[in-house]
Amino acid sequence: MANGQNLLCEKVKITSNFWNRYRKLVAKTVIPYQYNTLNDNIDVKLNKDAFADMRFYDGKIKSHAIENLKIAAGITQGKHSGMNFQDTDVYKWLEAAAYTLKYYPNQDLQKKTDDIVELIGQAQEEDGYLSTIFQINMPKRKFKRLQQSHELYSMGHYIEAGVAYYEATNNGKALEIAKKMADCLDENFGPESGKIHGAGGHPEIELALMRLYETTNEKKYLELTKYFVCERGKDPEFYDKQNIEDGIDNDFWPELKEYGEGYYFADKPVTEQDTAHGHAVRCVYFCVGLAHLARVTRDKELLDASKRLWKDIVKKQMYITGNVGQTQRGEAFTTDYDLPNDTVYGETCASVAMTFFAKQMIADNFNSEYADVIEKEIFNGALSGMSIDGTNYFYVNPLFMNPIESKDGHDKKHILTRRQPWFGTACCPANITRLIASLDQYLYEIKGDTILAHQYIANIAKFSDDIIIEQESNLPWEGEVVFNIENPNKKDFKFALRIPNWSKNNFKIYVDNKAIKPNVTEGVCYLDIKDSSVKVTLVLDMDTHIIRANEKVRQDIDQVAVQRGPIVYCAESADNKDDLWDYKLEEEPQFSFRYEKDLLGGVGKLITNDVKVLKKEEFDDGELYSFDKKNKYHSSQLTLIPYYAWANREEGQMSVWLHE
Amino acid sequence: MANGQNLLCEKVKITSNFWNRYRKLVAKTVIPYQYNTLNDNIDVKLNKDAFADMRFYDGKIKSHAIENLKIAAGITQGKHSGMNFQDTDVYKWLEAAAYTLKYYPNQDLQKKTDDIVELIGQAQEEDGYLSTIFQINMPKRKFKRLQQSHELYSMGHYIEAGVAYYEATNNGKALEIAKKMADCLDENFGPESGKIHGAGGHPEIELALMRLYETTNEKKYLELTKYFVCERGKDPEFYDKQNIEDGIDNDFWPELKEYGEGYYFADKPVTEQDTAHGHAVRCVYFCVGLAHLARVTRDKELLDASKRLWKDIVKKQMYITGNVGQTQRGEAFTTDYDLPNDTVYGETCASVAMTFFAKQMIADNFNSEYADVIEKEIFNGALSGMSIDGTNYFYVNPLFMNPIESKDGHDKKHILTRRQPWFGTACCPANITRLIASLDQYLYEIKGDTILAHQYIANIAKFSDDIIIEQESNLPWEGEVVFNIENPNKKDFKFALRIPNWSKNNFKIYVDNKAIKPNVTEGVCYLDIKDSSVKVTLVLDMDTHIIRANEKVRQDIDQVAVQRGPIVYCAESADNKDDLWDYKLEEEPQFSFRYEKDLLGGVGKLITNDVKVLKKEEFDDGELYSFDKKNKYHSSQLTLIPYYAWANREEGQMSVWLHE
Repeated sequence: MANGQNLLCEKVKITSNFWNRYRKLVAKTVIPYQYNTLNDNIDVKLNKDAFADMRFYDGKIKSHAIENLKIAAGITQGKHSGMNFQDTDVYKWLEAAAYTLKYYPNQDLQKKTDDIVELIGQAQEEDGYLSTIFQINMPKRKFKRLQQSHELYSMGHYIEAGVAYYEATNNGKALEIAKKMADCLDENFGPESGKIHGAGGHPEIELALMRLYETTNEKKYLELTKYFVCERGKDPEFYDKQNIEDGIDNDFWPELKEYGEGYYFADKPVTEQDTAHGHAVRCVYFCVGLAHLARVTRDKELLDASKRLWKDIVKKQMYITGNVGQTQRGEAFTTDYDLPNDTVYGETCASVAMTFFAKQMIADNFNSEYADVIEKEIFNGALSGMSIDGTNYFYVNPLFMNPIESKDGHDKKHILTRRQPWFGTACCPANITRLIASLDQYLYEIKGDTILAHQYIANIAKFSDDIIIEQESNLPWEGEVVFNIENPNKKDFKFALRIPNWSKNNFKIYVDNKAIKPNVTEGVCYLDIKDSSVKVTLVLDMDTHIIRANEKVRQDIDQVAVQRGPIVYCAESADNKDDLWDYKLEEEPQFSFRYEKDLLGGVGKLITNDVKVLKKEEFDDGELYSFDKKNKYHSSQLTLIPYYAWANREEGQMSVWLHE
Repeated sequence: MANGQNLLCEKVKITSNFWNRYRKLVAKTVIPYQYNTLNDNIDVKLNKDAFADMRFYDGKIKSHAIENLKIAAGITQGKHSGMNFQDTDVYKWLEAAAYTLKYYPNQDLQKKTDDIVELIGQAQEEDGYLSTIFQINMPKRKFKRLQQSHELYSMGHYIEAGVAYYEATNNGKALEIAKKMADCLDENFGPESGKIHGAGGHPEIELALMRLYETTNEKKYLELTKYFVCERGKDPEFYDKQNIEDGIDNDFWPELKEYGEGYYFADKPVTEQDTAHGHAVRCVYFCVGLAHLARVTRDKELLDASKRLWKDIVKKQMYITGNVGQTQRGEAFTTDYDLPNDTVYGETCASVAMTFFAKQMIADNFNSEYADVIEKEIFNGALSGMSIDGTNYFYVNPLFMNPIESKDGHDKKHILTRRQPWFGTACCPANITRLIASLDQYLYEIKGDTILAHQYIANIAKFSDDIIIEQESNLPWEGEVVFNIENPNKKDFKFALRIPNWSKNNFKIYVDNKAIKPNVTEGVCYLDIKDSSVKVTLVLDMDTHIIRANEKVRQDIDQVAVQRGPIVYCAESADNKDDLWDYKLEEEPQFSFRYEKDLLGGVGKLITNDVKVLKKEEFDDGELYSFDKKNKYHSSQLTLIPYYAWANREEGQMSVWLHE
């Protein structure tokens, strides 16, 4: 390292047109919309049929989340309503709001968020405990049924929000509440006798405590994280025992008793875990905390576990769009190379969690594969969770959807045909919102004297030593990325660039307009910067690529996906009149790219004529099966749009994978 | 008609090697095995994991079905155990046993079956009512919750058995019990005030009453059938109202309250029904009774309804194997052209029911399409329900199975990898058994002076006027079918032959060794018979055929199935070492046929070298997705076995549809 001191990133301002449209939308539309929802000021009818699997509110949005806090605070009277983690809808919103205040200051909003912090403070008990459902409905059962309670999950979400709000606004109360909460957990959980020897049924507290540790630098939070990470799965009967002690049939969420310990990722100690399994969001949230803890402690067993689990997900269980969780049953992972496109769960929260996990991994390992996943999620699997107008959301993100199958009420009833204005379990809307609002945190990583730019989203970033990097880029539509580096102190440092996997065979780097021979290690190109002003140009491959899945993935055999830059494309009925499965791409199809600024918030379409479509007249008299007939095709055209933008026009079929 | 009198079929003796192996197995092994099971004399461990979705008995076969009857009869004391239709396991077994007594007389067995008839008579109440769970556990709730009770379903199954046993053995008591039961229903159900205005949640009584009517010729049973057929769905709130009256949360099968009326096929009156939907067995059993009633009454609306529903199933919702019911959720039909091969339900009972339905249709319409389905079921979808050794059974018959997916406990946990010795809901074992045991009833239909031979299963059949037809055939393996017709009275009659759909473009008919130009109407060839001895030879197409599904079936796009004669083939890992989805058939693959007498009870295998397999080295470093790589193949060989014989060797993948 140059002078024994790490470089620091002080501020990142996103200037990307693509992302500023979303980030303005979040600040100006989404945050107020969700605030009104949490305060029960919106009365939107939901389609009851579409919600059979989501616990919902008689077809009406009625969050009651703020009201629950008011009741717990003694401000109003009433009963708790909603899920037992309803509080987290407020916390995730608060966290998202905090991020927007950094790029879009808004005194009105800050007044509201200050008030909410006050309210949360009032609802919090003396010892730091806060879970309104327990405080209101079952105060004697606190921490007694962790399998189902979501208490640690809820408090974890507040801790994240409190830290974020403190960092955004310097509101000390917000941080104080978070610390009090963590102290409450520290008081109740740990190896000491008299404390509870177990972890919450839904991981989240681990990643939250790591954030609190990084902000406060208080070692006890690191220790508590380590306790939760390592205690999980040590006693696979922990939940069963707690349930028996609390009254075996005294469930508040009976369904959760039916699943095995694997669902909670609590079937084995972390050091023995080698596959992602069970409830996808639980598993990946756990991985986020694990990876963060491992990175900070340098514990080899934990570092190995992070990499093992990463590899299992990304190399064996992740969809091309970045979505994870292959089944609705338990919102869960299934098995390696099992990737059904039509019954997939692919929860938006799981993609947000994968982005968190990837950030922890890239922060520790400058290997492009981690940042590739951040890019994959933010441009595809996670972003699909929010509509172009910001006020409708997907919980489930399929790679194939046929309305008639979704509506028949059977195996695909969780595959909604349209995004929804809210959910009974409303974890996803605020989750994708907070990710977009904090996107500036996902562009750079620093190690020693190396600044890694791993996402090509236009921005101006300020670093220590007065270094300023202005990144100009029109990704995801154009491939030239220019970095204007101002280094007034002529500091000697390394500037590292991720070479995206979609461009690894075709990219160019220019330093001050001169092509250089790139020095690439693990997908990262390193440049030495010494001058006071350097212009680095990265030219990425914007050809359209045909993607095939590993031959172990039976569901994608004989099919291809199409990707251009970071964007995975899909076909929709809105652009293509035949049944999507009847199109057949020619070998090496050529696509033309067309940017349409007025379509879907501005998208690049792909169009090919190298496609034929199965003739409908195939079978006389409507036979279901034909003997020895050949398929007949006629020439056709196929138009693709970015996957994230699907289901924003008229209802119809959608498919990512296309027959070839 | 020749002389105003219908010809009659007096006796059919099956001589087919293929079927006599099964029919001997049924008489000598299956009937005793199931008898022991029903009497709790067998102690077989079931694989608990495999039964998550079947209500089972702590991993032990414990039918308790005979015991329930003994308790109801007052012979022993105790509680009812098992499903509320547990009685039907006895009745279906009794029916199957009755059929075996006709072709395999057995005094020991007949003593046992006589005793069981006695026992049933003792268990039956004075008024004819019989449902042991109600008699033992809830005598005051008889007929009060028809949505869930299965009372009419249970009594229907007895009526079928009673009629069959009476016809086989002339046991008058068996028929008397059946009539008393039907009289009890007649007393309690009907349009008159004071009677119940509704039908049972699970159809079956309709088809049973029609059988009773045909045996007894008592008009009231026809009227009662008509009442049940036409009342169904007239008041879609009937079940809801009954449930409320009986106590809304007083369910004995709560799950059944969750489904809509469509599940019970009770959402609309029969005259308005135009799609098969809801629980597949309920729907098809209903169709059997409907078609039988329509045929006898000549009611045009009912005849139209039968044809409409037939067409929807066979032309839009039936698998190539004959299996029906596309989803495990509700064991149900889904929507037209939705035919997933890997999550299918395809219950054995539903295929048995389709055989019944097809028999009612062919009896009324000499159109080959109906008999084609009988053939499809008995050689494929239904037969798959029983193992080669007769003592293991499938409830669910998939068209694709991958053990790792079945065992992950999610969307495919109902797809068992092996047949099972019994089930908690044990409807399927005795159902496939009674079908095999009564196969002689499925070979001929007569209308006026026309004898239609529609199944090419070797047999000797005796008709009125001393006509004897000896059919020689080695189907399903060889295609020459010879009919030696003895007509000593030189009766002038028509002999009709179905031309199977798989042979319609390539068949020959010889009369006394002279080729004739066939006169084919609706897939049936008619011959005038006058001489005292006529030899008719039908030569069918035994080439291997490549089958494609309608282009509306997205799940089968780019795939083909293989059929030879009536047999649909499949690939199994036992014969093919690569993942089955990685094989790709060439265009117009040539198959060689090889009969192996010692394999799987004697089967014809198909082998092709016109196949390549995807190379495993495809993606370096185990990437899940590759950019712009071409698939590479190496040449290979693929061996197929009949679908009905799958899962009788070592556990492995199975697929009916193959990539091309």
